Amino acid sequence: MDRILRGPSGLGTSGLLGQRPAPAAVAPAANPAAPAAPAAPAAPAAEKPAVPAVSVPVAPAAPAVNAPTLRVPFLTGPAALTPPAPAAPEAGQPVPGLYYHPVPEPDPARVAEVGRRVKDWAVDEVQLYPPEWEDQFDGFSLGKYMVACHPDAPTVDHLMLATRLMAAENVVDDCYCEDHGGSPVGLGGRLLLAHTTLDPVHTTDQYHPHWQDSLQEDAPRRAYRSAMDYFTRAASPSQADRFRHDMARLHLGYLAEAAWSETGYIPEVWEYLAMRQFNNFRPCPTITDTVGGYELPAELHALPAMQRAIALGSNATTIVNDLYSYTKELNSPGIHLNLPVVLAEREGLSERDAYLKAIEVHNDLMHAFESAAAEVAAAHPLPSVFRFLKGVAAWIDGNHHWHSTNTYRYTLPDYW
Amino acid sequence: MDRILRGPSGLGTSGLLGQRPAPAAVAPAANPAAPAAPAAPAAPAAEKPAVPAVSVPVAPAAPAVNAPTLRVPFLTGPAALTPPAPAAPEAGQPVPGLYYHPVPEPDPARVAEVGRRVKDWAVDEVQLYPPEWEDQFDGFSLGKYMVACHPDAPTVDHLMLATRLMAAENVVDDCYCEDHGGSPVGLGGRLLLAHTTLDPVHTTDQYHPHWQDSLQEDAPRRAYRSAMDYFTRAASPSQADRFRHDMARLHLGYLAEAAWSETGYIPEVWEYLAMRQFNNFRPCPTITDTVGGYELPAELHALPAMQRAIALGSNATTIVNDLYSYTKELNSPGIHLNLPVVLAEREGLSERDAYLKAIEVHNDLMHAFESAAAEVAAAHPLPSVFRFLKGVAAWIDGNHHWHSTNTYRYTLPDYW
Repeated sequence: MDRILRGPSGLGTSGLLGQRPAPAAVAPAANPAAPAAPAAPAAPAAEKPAVPAVSVPVAPAAPAVNAPTLRVPFLTGPAALTPPAPAAPEAGQPVPGLYYHPVPEPDPARVAEVGRRVKDWAVDEVQLYPPEWEDQFDGFSLGKYMVACHPDAPTVDHLMLATRLMAAENVVDDCYCEDHGGSPVGLGGRLLLAHTTLDPVHTTDQYHPHWQDSLQEDAPRRAYRSAMDYFTRAASPSQADRFRHDMARLHLGYLAEAAWSETGYIPEVWEYLAMRQFNNFRPCPTITDTVGGYELPAELHALPAMQRAIALGSNATTIVNDLYSYTKELNSPGIHLNLPVVLAEREGLSERDAYLKAIEVHNDLMHAFESAAAEVAAAHPLPSVFRFLKGVAAWIDGNHHWHSTNTYRYTLPDYW
Repeated sequence: MDRILRGPSGLGTSGLLGQRPAPAAVAPAANPAAPAAPAAPAAPAAEKPAVPAVSVPVAPAAPAVNAPTLRVPFLTGPAALTPPAPAAPEAGQPVPGLYYHPVPEPDPARVAEVGRRVKDWAVDEVQLYPPEWEDQFDGFSLGKYMVACHPDAPTVDHLMLATRLMAAENVVDDCYCEDHGGSPVGLGGRLLLAHTTLDPVHTTDQYHPHWQDSLQEDAPRRAYRSAMDYFTRAASPSQADRFRHDMARLHLGYLAEAAWSETGYIPEVWEYLAMRQFNNFRPCPTITDTVGGYELPAELHALPAMQRAIALGSNATTIVNDLYSYTKELNSPGIHLNLPVVLAEREGLSERDAYLKAIEVHNDLMHAFESAAAEVAAAHPLPSVFRFLKGVAAWIDGNHHWHSTNTYRYTLPDYW
C-alpha cells in the first residue's frame, strides 16, 4: 500500500517539491565532515572524442575534462575497475568516475534574477505551492539550474521560458506521480487532462468552456498552462509542436513506470533504460533553441541522426539524475526504481557494484552522445545544427553541475 | 473483474479482431429484415458550408450532401429535434440524422489487391494472428477501408503504407487493451515498449540487442515494427516524426481510458471528449500526404489553425466510431465507454436521447472541422495545404463509408 500511495518515480527524482532526505539517513562517508576527495585530475586529451561542434564555448577557464574515470571492463579490461578515489566524496562533489564536463559557476546576477522572477510567477500567477513548501521550492535552486543549462540565452526573459516549464514539469510529477499526493492509480486520466494544457482540446461550443475551466483547477494544470502560454508566444509553431511531442513522451514514460509500480514489476535493465528514455529530461534540452532565441528547423530536428543524438544525450542526463538521487530514493518508502536498483535486482549485483556499473552505463551514453553529435554535425554542417548540438551539450553539462552541487537535495553513497 | 479483464475501449471499438456481436443481441429494428429507411434527401445547398478547399473531388457522381439532418436545438431550435426518419435504418445504412458526405464505392480491383497483399503481409511477414482469427481479419475489410480513405493514393504500394499501419494499430489495441488478451492492468509498460517500435531506443552496446530482440516478441510489436519500417522508407523524417507524435497521443489516450476503466470512473462529457481526442483515429488521416506521395511541410502542419482542423476532423471520425459500434459495445461485458453511454450517465438522458445527442455532437464537430479547414486554406492558399486538407476530408468520408457499410461488425440501434 505504501508503494501504491507513494507513486512511481519520474523527473520527480529531481522533483521540485521532493522531500529532502532526513540527515540521519545520509550515507556516513558522504557526510560533509568526511575528508575531501582528491581533486579530479585532467584526463588525457586522447580520451575525449574530438567533437568540435559540440564543445561548449562557455567555459573558457574550465576546459572539458574527464573526471577520474572508472575504467569499464569492455573498454580497458577488468583490472582497471578499482576506483581511483578511495576516499568518500565530499558533499557537493561529482560522482567519482563519472564522465562529465565542468562548467563555470553560473552568473550570480542572472541566477538571482531568474530565482526572484520564477518565485513571483509561482506565487502570484499560478499559486504553485502552499507556504509550507517554500523551503523546498527555494532549495530546488531553479535559477541556478536554468542559468547553468542555458549559457547562451540572450536575456532573462528567454531563461524564464525554460524556468517556468521546469517548475511546472516538476510540480506535475510531484503532485500527480510522486510524494505530494501522487499515485499510479488513475494516473492516466490525470496526466491526459494535464497534457491538454499543452495540446489543447478542440470540441463543441457546449463542452469547450468546461475544458477551459479545468485548466485552472489545480497547481499542476495552472503551471503547465501558464508556462506553455509564455512558451508558445516565443516559440515557432514547430518548436511548440516539438515540445508537445517530447512532453507526450514524458507522460508515456511516467505511465510505464506507474504501471510497473502498481503491479510490483521490476523491469529488465533494457526495459528500464527504454522507459527512462521516455521518463526523461528530454523536453528540457530540446527547447535550447527557443531559449537561445533561434530555431533549429523542424526538418533538421526530425533527422534520424539528430533524433539519435538527442535521445542519447537526454538519456545521459537522466541517468545522472538516477546517480545523484540514489541515496534520496533509498531513503524514501518502498522500492524506487533507478538504474542502480534495477541493475542490482536483475544482474545480481551488490548495491555498490550496481551503482558503479550504472556509472559505466552513464559514461557509455555520454560517449555515444558525443559521437552521435559529431556525426550529425559533420553530415549537416549548418550554423543552426552546430548551435543546437552545443545547446544540448551545454544543457547536459549544466544539469550535471546542478545535480552535483545541490547539497540541499542530494548526497552521494559511500562506495569509494 | 470482468471489466478489468476486458480492458478499456480504444480504436478497438473498431478493433481488427474485435468480436462480432452475437446475432441475438442485435437491436431488432436494425435487423436487415426491417423495412428500409427512406432514401436520404439531398440537403439544401445552403446547409453545407462553402469549403471549396476541402470538397473532395473524388465523387463526381455523388455530390456531398447532408443526410436527413437531426436539427440540433442550438442551431434551429428544439422543435426540429424530432427525427425525420421514423422507420428503423436498414443494416448497412448511415445513421439517420448524421451529417456526412457519401463517397463512390471504392475501386474493387484496388480493394482486392490491397486485401490480398495485407493478408500476405500479416501471415508471412509478421504472423499477425492465429488461424482461428482469420474470419475476423477478413471481416474487417482493410482493403475497402483504406481504398475508401485514400482516393488520391498514386499506387497500391502507397495504399499499403496506410493499410499495414491500420492493421498493426488495431492488433495492438485488441491484444494489449481489448478483447484479445488486453487489460488496463500494467498497460502503461506494454504500450511504452510497443511505442519503442515506432520511436527507437538509443542505448548502450550491451543493452541494445535485448531491446532489438524484443521487437519480435509478440504480434503487436512485430506488426508495429514492420509497418513502421515500410512507412519510414516512404516518408520524410518530418512525416515520420509527425506520425510518432500522433501515436504517442493515441497511446496516452488508451492509458487515460484504461485508468478510468480500472478505477470505475465515468468521466464528465468534456473529459470523455478530451480523452477521445487522444484515443482517436488521428494517426490515420494525418499520413494522408505520405500515402498520397507528397508532403505537407512540417511548419505548415504545425500551424495552430492546421492543428485545430486536424483535431476537429479526427474527433468527428472518432465519434462516428462511437455511433456505429454502439450496439456492439452494449453487447460486450461491462461498461464500454462511448459518447452515448457517457451522455446518458452524466446528463441523465435515456439511452435513445443520449444516442441522438451524440449525433448532434458529431455533426457539430464536422461543421467545426469544415469551417476550420476553410479558414486555414484561406490563410495559407498553398497547393500542399489544399491537398492535405482534402486528404483529411476524404479520410473522414471514407471512414464513414466503411463504418456504415461494414455489416460484419456494426449494426445500428433501434432509435428511429
